[in-house]
Amino acid sequence: MRINENYRNIQDSYLFSTVGKKVAAYAASHPDARIIRLGIGDVTRPLCPAVIDALHRAVSEMGTPEGFHGYIPSEQGYPFLREAVAGHYAERGVTLSPEEIFISDGAKSDLGNLLDLFDADNTVLIPDPVYPAYVDANVMAGRRVRYVDATPDNGFLPLPDADLDADLVYICSPNNPTGAVYDHAGLAAWVDYALRRGALLLFDAAYEAFVSDPALPRTIYEVEGARSCAIEICSLSKTAGFTGTRCGYTIVPRELKFGGMSLNAMWLRRQSTKFNGVPYIVQRAAEAVFTPEGWSQCMESIDYYRENARIIAGTLDELGIFYTGGIHSPYIWLRCPGGLDSWAFFDLLLEKANVVGTPGAGFGVNGEGFFRLTAFGQRESTREAMQRFADLARTL
Amino acid sequence: MRINENYRNIQDSYLFSTVGKKVAAYAASHPDARIIRLGIGDVTRPLCPAVIDALHRAVSEMGTPEGFHGYIPSEQGYPFLREAVAGHYAERGVTLSPEEIFISDGAKSDLGNLLDLFDADNTVLIPDPVYPAYVDANVMAGRRVRYVDATPDNGFLPLPDADLDADLVYICSPNNPTGAVYDHAGLAAWVDYALRRGALLLFDAAYEAFVSDPALPRTIYEVEGARSCAIEICSLSKTAGFTGTRCGYTIVPRELKFGGMSLNAMWLRRQSTKFNGVPYIVQRAAEAVFTPEGWSQCMESIDYYRENARIIAGTLDELGIFYTGGIHSPYIWLRCPGGLDSWAFFDLLLEKANVVGTPGAGFGVNGEGFFRLTAFGQRESTREAMQRFADLARTL
Repeated sequence: MRINENYRNIQDSYLFSTVGKKVAAYAASHPDARIIRLGIGDVTRPLCPAVIDALHRAVSEMGTPEGFHGYIPSEQGYPFLREAVAGHYAERGVTLSPEEIFISDGAKSDLGNLLDLFDADNTVLIPDPVYPAYVDANVMAGRRVRYVDATPDNGFLPLPDADLDADLVYICSPNNPTGAVYDHAGLAAWVDYALRRGALLLFDAAYEAFVSDPALPRTIYEVEGARSCAIEICSLSKTAGFTGTRCGYTIVPRELKFGGMSLNAMWLRRQSTKFNGVPYIVQRAAEAVFTPEGWSQCMESIDYYRENARIIAGTLDELGIFYTGGIHSPYIWLRCPGGLDSWAFFDLLLEKANVVGTPGAGFGVNGEGFFRLTAFGQRESTREAMQRFADLARTL
Repeated sequence: MRINENYRNIQDSYLFSTVGKKVAAYAASHPDARIIRLGIGDVTRPLCPAVIDALHRAVSEMGTPEGFHGYIPSEQGYPFLREAVAGHYAERGVTLSPEEIFISDGAKSDLGNLLDLFDADNTVLIPDPVYPAYVDANVMAGRRVRYVDATPDNGFLPLPDADLDADLVYICSPNNPTGAVYDHAGLAAWVDYALRRGALLLFDAAYEAFVSDPALPRTIYEVEGARSCAIEICSLSKTAGFTGTRCGYTIVPRELKFGGMSLNAMWLRRQSTKFNGVPYIVQRAAEAVFTPEGWSQCMESIDYYRENARIIAGTLDELGIFYTGGIHSPYIWLRCPGGLDSWAFFDLLLEKANVVGTPGAGFGVNGEGFFRLTAFGQRESTREAMQRFADLARTL
């Protein structure tokens, strides 16, 4: 049996494991240190009451002969949830048919599995810095990966130029790790590029719920023409604290046709062959997110994280440190104080301030000299972390 | 952008949709007919009390700051569940390390996604008749598919011969759709074949909990040498009624090395790139299955289905109709009475007896003239269905 040789070419990503090891080593040798973690992008607030109630109800159903639910009637998701997602898009003026909505167990699965639909002989364009899974999933299939530079000069929001040669383009806005958000004109430039070249955009909208300016797009389909060139992948992980509950959705518009084939039909075929749907109880939980009560409870948590982001950003403003994000995003992406490189600042912040962040260099070449903090902590520890951060930065 | 051209070669499988359409049409034109469905392999008994309790407890945790669980620490699954699965194997005398156990959202996902690890240039051997997703998942990747005949002559349990040229071999025992079960010698013949050729076995153990004879293997690892040539894919769908709750597990032993690469390390890399783990609450539910209380409750449901299988088999015995399965399997695979072909008997059984089964021809060439009934119905309707079946068969 011959293995997939492309696996030999995957670079080992040691980012989060190295962070974890360094923190564990420090904690072991400094047992009294009160370490505050603003590193990993995981939520900390519990599931909201509307979601918990929906889960308990659905669990109780599953224990009775009348209420029991077996195989999900369609791998694409229960109609009740696809209609709820359609309603969410309708609030942004975007009309979707439930047949265009695929319920998933999260953005990461779909971002990886969607690649099944595309030939290995495609050029993939990925911004640098970037969420590492985009790259690995393509290297596994032997696709050519090119990078487009996200730098302070373009506000970490690169735009296409006509020379750019790409078939598949990843866009994440609000961005992980930089927190930068494309405006309507920025996304329209990418849609225009894709339509002219026959490229496909893979739009990762996982952080859309953090956008508070109504003028900023929360879905690529707010841009005219996007239905003919973009798949959107979204998740309830950050919107509703579902990182451990696992539910997302992917939009594959009917207009998407390549080589005479409908991507919607291909994705349905892929999912009905290699996926069996999201648990009934989780789909009921997700449905509750989109009720008025559930949504307002989820937005309370988002507001809580937003206030953390304001605390982080406020400290950086006071210190005069360059950063992006933190307004429409749970991530703050900052230039390391004192001209330090990413890992040097990581070590210093851990050792002198007992605060953990993520070194920007771990997200790509252009991340060197930058650092990511997240707003997903507790309020008081965020405040204290930024006090310690400021005390350290003033010495650099 | 170039699509994956292999998708053009996937045969449309109309089996269950055609069954569904025919039943719907008949029901519409015969509104008073009391149709009994013994077609689709879905369970009907509710989740057992131990599982329901575990789910409620886990849901309540998720609603509190102290009990909330975010990202699953490893995509491979929580240690508590991997240890529970290891304990389940230990009861069969099979020792597994938790690092060899990968918690999944079900066998179908893993059976499809595992193929990521293998080159397109491999020959895949699949028994006919077969669960259709095995074939489709390989056609999507452009692999050569060959079939090995499962027929009444070999009791629907084909054995390898030396001429057989295959790199990847699917084995499902107890089998879907035939219900036939390999004994130790049968599996040992396949293990021997794989070891001699450097092939990999993909062993689908989804129905293992139905095996009641302790002499029959419930896992391929009961066979010596299997750790060096077999991946086992299992699911709680049939064991514990998890068809709508979604949890399974895949075993990738450390000994599996091909081209110098560890399949265990490759699968971990694949899953940590394209999967984010099974919901915490579902992993707690699965853990409860493997407690003494949960297991005994699950076995009560299995016994209930087994009694249904005995009723079906008893009727066939009385009628002198050839069948396989029904003893260590929820499926009964029978020769259509009166020498009818699969779809002719399907139509007749629907129209004259108002009973729905699955035409064997839908599972492959060797399924023609056969028919699948499932033991997953309610007791009284199973009894009545078989009474009607007998009345019809006696007229043929």
